Amino acid sequence: MVVVVKNDTDQERLKDLITWLKQFGVQIHITRGTQTSILGLVGDTSSIDMSDVQSFDIVEDVKRIQEPYKAANRKFHPHDTVVEVGGLKIGGGNFQVIAGPCSVETEDQICEVAKRVQKAGATMIRGGAFKPRTSPYSFQGLRATGIELLKEAKALTGMPIVTEIMSIEHLPLFEDVDVIQVGARNMQNFELLKELGKLDKPILLKRGLANTIEELLMSAEYIMAGGNENVILCERGIRTFETSTRNTLDISAIPVIKRHSHLPVVIDPSHAAGLTWMVEPLSLAAVAAGADGLIIEVHNDPQHALSDGAQSLTPDQFDAVMEKIKSLGSFMGKTLSC
Amino acid sequence: MVVVVKNDTDQERLKDLITWLKQFGVQIHITRGTQTSILGLVGDTSSIDMSDVQSFDIVEDVKRIQEPYKAANRKFHPHDTVVEVGGLKIGGGNFQVIAGPCSVETEDQICEVAKRVQKAGATMIRGGAFKPRTSPYSFQGLRATGIELLKEAKALTGMPIVTEIMSIEHLPLFEDVDVIQVGARNMQNFELLKELGKLDKPILLKRGLANTIEELLMSAEYIMAGGNENVILCERGIRTFETSTRNTLDISAIPVIKRHSHLPVVIDPSHAAGLTWMVEPLSLAAVAAGADGLIIEVHNDPQHALSDGAQSLTPDQFDAVMEKIKSLGSFMGKTLSC
Amino acid sequence: MVVVVKNDTDQERLKDLITWLKQFGVQIHITRGTQTSILGLVGDTSSIDMSDVQSFDIVEDVKRIQEPYKAANRKFHPHDTVVEVGGLKIGGGNFQVIAGPCSVETEDQICEVAKRVQKAGATMIRGGAFKPRTSPYSFQGLRATGIELLKEAKALTGMPIVTEIMSIEHLPLFEDVDVIQVGARNMQNFELLKELGKLDKPILLKRGLANTIEELLMSAEYIMAGGNENVILCERGIRTFETSTRNTLDISAIPVIKRHSHLPVVIDPSHAAGLTWMVEPLSLAAVAAGADGLIIEVHNDPQHALSDGAQSLTPDQFDAVMEKIKSLGSFMGKTLSC
Amino acid sequence: MVVVVKNDTDQERLKDLITWLKQFGVQIHITRGTQTSILGLVGDTSSIDMSDVQSFDIVEDVKRIQEPYKAANRKFHPHDTVVEVGGLKIGGGNFQVIAGPCSVETEDQICEVAKRVQKAGATMIRGGAFKPRTSPYSFQGLRATGIELLKEAKALTGMPIVTEIMSIEHLPLFEDVDVIQVGARNMQNFELLKELGKLDKPILLKRGLANTIEELLMSAEYIMAGGNENVILCERGIRTFETSTRNTLDISAIPVIKRHSHLPVVIDPSHAAGLTWMVEPLSLAAVAAGADGLIIEVHNDPQHALSDGAQSLTPDQFDAVMEKIKSLGSFMGKTLSC
Repeated sequence: MVVVVKNDTDQERLKDLITWLKQFGVQIHITRGTQTSILGLVGDTSSIDMSDVQSFDIVEDVKRIQEPYKAANRKFHPHDTVVEVGGLKIGGGNFQVIAGPCSVETEDQICEVAKRVQKAGATMIRGGAFKPRTSPYSFQGLRATGIELLKEAKALTGMPIVTEIMSIEHLPLFEDVDVIQVGARNMQNFELLKELGKLDKPILLKRGLANTIEELLMSAEYIMAGGNENVILCERGIRTFETSTRNTLDISAIPVIKRHSHLPVVIDPSHAAGLTWMVEPLSLAAVAAGADGLIIEVHNDPQHALSDGAQSLTPDQFDAVMEKIKSLGSFMGKTLSC
Repeated sequence: MVVVVKNDTDQERLKDLITWLKQFGVQIHITRGTQTSILGLVGDTSSIDMSDVQSFDIVEDVKRIQEPYKAANRKFHPHDTVVEVGGLKIGGGNFQVIAGPCSVETEDQICEVAKRVQKAGATMIRGGAFKPRTSPYSFQGLRATGIELLKEAKALTGMPIVTEIMSIEHLPLFEDVDVIQVGARNMQNFELLKELGKLDKPILLKRGLANTIEELLMSAEYIMAGGNENVILCERGIRTFETSTRNTLDISAIPVIKRHSHLPVVIDPSHAAGLTWMVEPLSLAAVAAGADGLIIEVHNDPQHALSDGAQSLTPDQFDAVMEKIKSLGSFMGKTLSC
Repeated sequence: MVVVVKNDTDQERLKDLITWLKQFGVQIHITRGTQTSILGLVGDTSSIDMSDVQSFDIVEDVKRIQEPYKAANRKFHPHDTVVEVGGLKIGGGNFQVIAGPCSVETEDQICEVAKRVQKAGATMIRGGAFKPRTSPYSFQGLRATGIELLKEAKALTGMPIVTEIMSIEHLPLFEDVDVIQVGARNMQNFELLKELGKLDKPILLKRGLANTIEELLMSAEYIMAGGNENVILCERGIRTFETSTRNTLDISAIPVIKRHSHLPVVIDPSHAAGLTWMVEPLSLAAVAAGADGLIIEVHNDPQHALSDGAQSLTPDQFDAVMEKIKSLGSFMGKTLSC
Repeated sequence: MVVVVKNDTDQERLKDLITWLKQFGVQIHITRGTQTSILGLVGDTSSIDMSDVQSFDIVEDVKRIQEPYKAANRKFHPHDTVVEVGGLKIGGGNFQVIAGPCSVETEDQICEVAKRVQKAGATMIRGGAFKPRTSPYSFQGLRATGIELLKEAKALTGMPIVTEIMSIEHLPLFEDVDVIQVGARNMQNFELLKELGKLDKPILLKRGLANTIEELLMSAEYIMAGGNENVILCERGIRTFETSTRNTLDISAIPVIKRHSHLPVVIDPSHAAGLTWMVEPLSLAAVAAGADGLIIEVHNDPQHALSDGAQSLTPDQFDAVMEKIKSLGSFMGKTLSC
């Protein structure tokens, strides 16, 4: 951490600041400039809050040098983390495709979709039981029943289940869920993250619409600080001024996360674009940029889907996209389970 | 709602779309253009999901005409809502200032700050017991103890308490809290909003960093749809590319909300700016633009605050800012309780 | 400037970096940390390009401490700049309102509007002769003729003219223009800025839709570095994800600019909002936050305006808004010329 | 176009609006709803300004159905445009890599880089002679001399030249330039675009940092409306809240542009990321998503580059990246000239 102070500062108050900083166990080196001086802090600064430093009125600026995350940091864990889900590996060169409908609706629907996506090469089934909807008047998901239906699809196909949690109190219902998804809107629901840190089940953590990559890694840190290191990160588009797509897929997030963290990264092209015809080019871009997996919405009858029909592929469309994903994945040297 | 379809569309599939739309009880008028035709939907379209319409591949575009919120909509409720908190009114020309520290830390701290801000003209005390922090290694709040200390400050001063909830399961602890705050990060924690809709306690609902005003009103709608109409909206800055302020205060949100909704709006200049020297100009701008109140951070010792020291005023600074707020509030014709 | 280097760095390459940095005449102090070392640069670093430093592969991060602008910097020029326009002062407590139509259309139109806005209290007339339009099929302005018509309005009322330049080659036409406006889209048209730096005429420099405040000050620096210190800055809304307003007025820009620069700041509430009913609250917010002036669109017949009718006030609406602006301006201690 | 009017509207004023709209030669169909009525406009609405419609106070909302661009629209020109540059084709399956330094510095530099990038597979040489720099104190380019040096590099290698124009008055210097680049900051310098529309030389038009894809296509329309149909579009990153990359590469722009327009699209991974280690993954993502080309910064000595060293590859790094680009390009079925 670097603290910039004005040079015309009262020496007594500078001493106060230095005494306060030293409480955190850091060493301080001073570089005096013409107008400002720079305090260089050496040691572990992760518990110093930049905002507190800034509240000293002699402080002109504070800049963090060290990344504020540890468990998620590649510096302290140079090798890729490989998360295992029911015998399937994700990360470290292993690539998986998770597919299924936005919402679980009926037994027929989820089972039919599960069989079709598995045949096409998907290795995990997704489907929303609890659905975050902008409007209270929209379908809110089948909830507990939805999870039961997912288990039937799993029994039928053997595919692990990926589904979203919206509240801590629903946790008991997720016992047989293989991967618990934290949605974009809950990325900074810190109480929920802390609870998930007590489990040893893999967590699929989606980036919030307005969250930086550093904040995503800090949310992963919440889970990992509790002891659960099975975190899979997911980029699903961020909010920008552009209106021709629902969100803007931040493809750069893949190399940035890979450089700073060892955790696997999957891409959700369905939510990023919000439109079916963009799923293929965005999926291929993600594979080429180094993603460890994809999560794609597929519905057997998108026009009568109870949510997000516009972005769901039909099983036939998914077959065609999967052919290209598998082919490109192999070309890029990925290990696919299908 | 307006649905645009291609003119070279198979008539059978157009009939399918129309049949599907009619299930929602709307009437449909068709305007045929040279390349596309426009279906104009008449009736209540709030339960039709735009994304579902878009999943019909003959659909080129869908545009919503009606606002998707009802309870929060000024069209159906032309008069300003006035929310009452322990005898104090907010909205409809009534203006209140809520003040206090970011985090509740000790009995001395919260009681001293409460006395000072009351003397300066604040009418409600704020303070975080449960704190959402980006880092798991930062102070997370005194939690239940923090709420106990707020009650002591209330006993001492008579001021109602405003404090943030982070999880449904903490709700029993909030029984004596006067206004429950939903933080920016939980604006779309829909399960929480539904629970708060079952109460009759006032809710201070903060806008999320990346949420549109329409989404804020939809979140208010979640609470109101459950029966709780005591919602106070709060603008606290949105996330943009600008880096000289922590967030960008969207001052236009005041007139936009006032035009489309009847709910009161308060401004949080402390979180918007992130820097004490901006609290005064932003507070005055908010009063001039028509806000119904302010929520301001004040700490008796900002340099040793356990969170957000950089944006907390000292009690002396708050005295000076309050003088100007009261004076401008009177000039603008607001009814102040202080 | 602070340069962070990895500690496992080859000493030869560190020496190379230090030699290269010393060419710029700076002194370097090294603080060695556990994983990284910090080079603190003392002296004038404004000619060192951060990107060049970053191209040394041993460099992990570079952070600028000193602001990169000098002539526009309050540190070296503590007193408010007061720009004079035909005997009128703007800045340093002096407040002016510039008003007129988006586009100059006819002699009758510009003269009628000029008389009406002058009567209401505006002191300068604005009107677009050269119009930047998103579509090549929209009205592009009367160009040279438009400037002639503005001069007639000036002859009639005595008010100075403010109008936008779109290309260096039009400069000769601007000889009798009192304030040359640089529009948001040309804020970083550096060749144009350099030419304007050679004049001594006041320049109204609008912030670009996606430009930071620092970049706005750097564009002012381009003009001032050429010798023209008569720069008036203008905030007119930035581009964000919010769609209920055309742009998001960044009200915080006023205190931020005032803290870092001595130049006057005016607000354009018409372009920020894009809707007439928002002009009043945004104008009042600007006055309360400390702006030095306003630039407001007024058209005698907004429905038949050739551009931007949606955001133009009628003269009657302008009368009403001006009453409040003048009253609030006096309350805030501003010196108004009307 | 769809115009929404309030139902409680005075019939006289509705008639006024309809009369005004009919002047544009459109037919109008009215759908009456419970609270609002919808006017559906049939015919060519491209000359109706949405803002003018909105200035009628009985109008509640206006929505455009038709895209506002014609010449750039795929609807009226279904086949891919193939732009030819000195015998090389770009678009319609033909893929080119443009490479070279950010700034032209010396004859040795540009000639050495030209030879190296050509050997690696680049087919056009880029280099800035006129440089848009945020700071007036940074190197501004060699200007006319820079163009002379580029011509020497062309004489040596036979590669066409791509270089940026910053002002209309420099146009005579660009006679021997093969592709004129319009930089992001000039995307809406409409006077410049009109001049370029009079040439028949290919124009590489870069997307502005805060411009939508529709605005990019409207700027292309400015050039094409003048008669020059040789427009190559370039996505180079947009400005968002994310700070770990200089800009956010909008990879979705590729499929969106391809769907709505017939013009070729190239990607600039160097400016998007701002960091060399991201050039490879972003280049591969662009190829996989369907781009028609890449423009990449290469410098023989990035550490001593006079601009943007941080994002320039060394010739050796470029060799390695090109191997992968060529291999993936062939795999994706592109026709490469190298």
